[in-house]
Amino acid sequence: MSSINDPAVLFQGTTLEGPEIDRVTRTLGDLTDVFSDKDALAAMAADQKVYDVACYFPVADGTTAGLFFGITYIYPGKVGTEYFMTRGHFHQLRDRGEFYHCLEGEGMLILMDEDRQTRAEKMYPGSLHYIPGHTAHRTANTGNSMLVFSAFWPSDAGHDYQSISEKGFSGILVEQNGEPVLASK
Amino acid sequence: MSSINDPAVLFQGTTLEGPEIDRVTRTLGDLTDVFSDKDALAAMAADQKVYDVACYFPVADGTTAGLFFGITYIYPGKVGTEYFMTRGHFHQLRDRGEFYHCLEGEGMLILMDEDRQTRAEKMYPGSLHYIPGHTAHRTANTGNSMLVFSAFWPSDAGHDYQSISEKGFSGILVEQNGEPVLASK
Repeated sequence: MSSINDPAVLFQGTTLEGPEIDRVTRTLGDLTDVFSDKDALAAMAADQKVYDVACYFPVADGTTAGLFFGITYIYPGKVGTEYFMTRGHFHQLRDRGEFYHCLEGEGMLILMDEDRQTRAEKMYPGSLHYIPGHTAHRTANTGNSMLVFSAFWPSDAGHDYQSISEKGFSGILVEQNGEPVLASK
Repeated sequence: MSSINDPAVLFQGTTLEGPEIDRVTRTLGDLTDVFSDKDALAAMAADQKVYDVACYFPVADGTTAGLFFGITYIYPGKVGTEYFMTRGHFHQLRDRGEFYHCLEGEGMLILMDEDRQTRAEKMYPGSLHYIPGHTAHRTANTGNSMLVFSAFWPSDAGHDYQSISEKGFSGILVEQNGEPVLASK
């Protein structure tokens, strides 16, 4: 009777392969509003890669009740004392949650609620993180190798980068005496 | 300033560990309505394990816009020629999607739409499967070792086991000449 098909996508180790995979790279030049130390930033190459993202979007963006999947690869590095990190966002539909699962490396999930209270969770291979709704989230690489994590989120969540671009997070993750510390901005 | 916390849950290899993990086991005795060959079933031990599930529910069941995570471990075995499999369900909110990711072993994701058209996708380590809304889903272990896969789904999806319990899937996955075949029920 009915058919037996191959899977559309392979997620093996830290790679995502398939005909429908969406890939994007963010460089320091794309993230000039993100890092605090503008002098340190100006002294670095604008084409320095900060992170790559590979995504599988099985349904159209904005679809109710569907899910998206992605893998993020953050390079090791710092701008001044601040670790390389993702842009960070609230979901456009504020109540949407998300899961992160660390695959490789060492880092920190930085979370900020709508009252601008910032906290962080340690990321290391196997750490599983639930990001509740109404919570902005970004990730920083605090190690010397790539930080790699997978993410699952609702296909109607959307991204609000604007409010982070304008006001940032209330806390920034910097290196002090060789350790990551969440410091007031 | 704010705190740096450990992750609540660890998902390393095929194990899920943490204080909030929910665990359940299903035996042949729990699944008497599921397998087609009732004579073969009657000759087997009712306490034979068919699958274990470990779940992380970070929000209450039914919460809008949240997500759940689980790992399913299906034992190798057959009832007559039909492979050991999960009960299978539609989501109670029919349009909710789900992701499966195979971690270990060999199996098949069996999908049936609301017109009772059944199809299957091969599962093997790394295979990533998007289960669209309005689609009943179950998984079968076609190998000689445990089939292990992770799943992510919306916390308001719910499970409708009843319609599967009453009418089953239109196709069953049986072994013919040593190969899995999707056969009419």
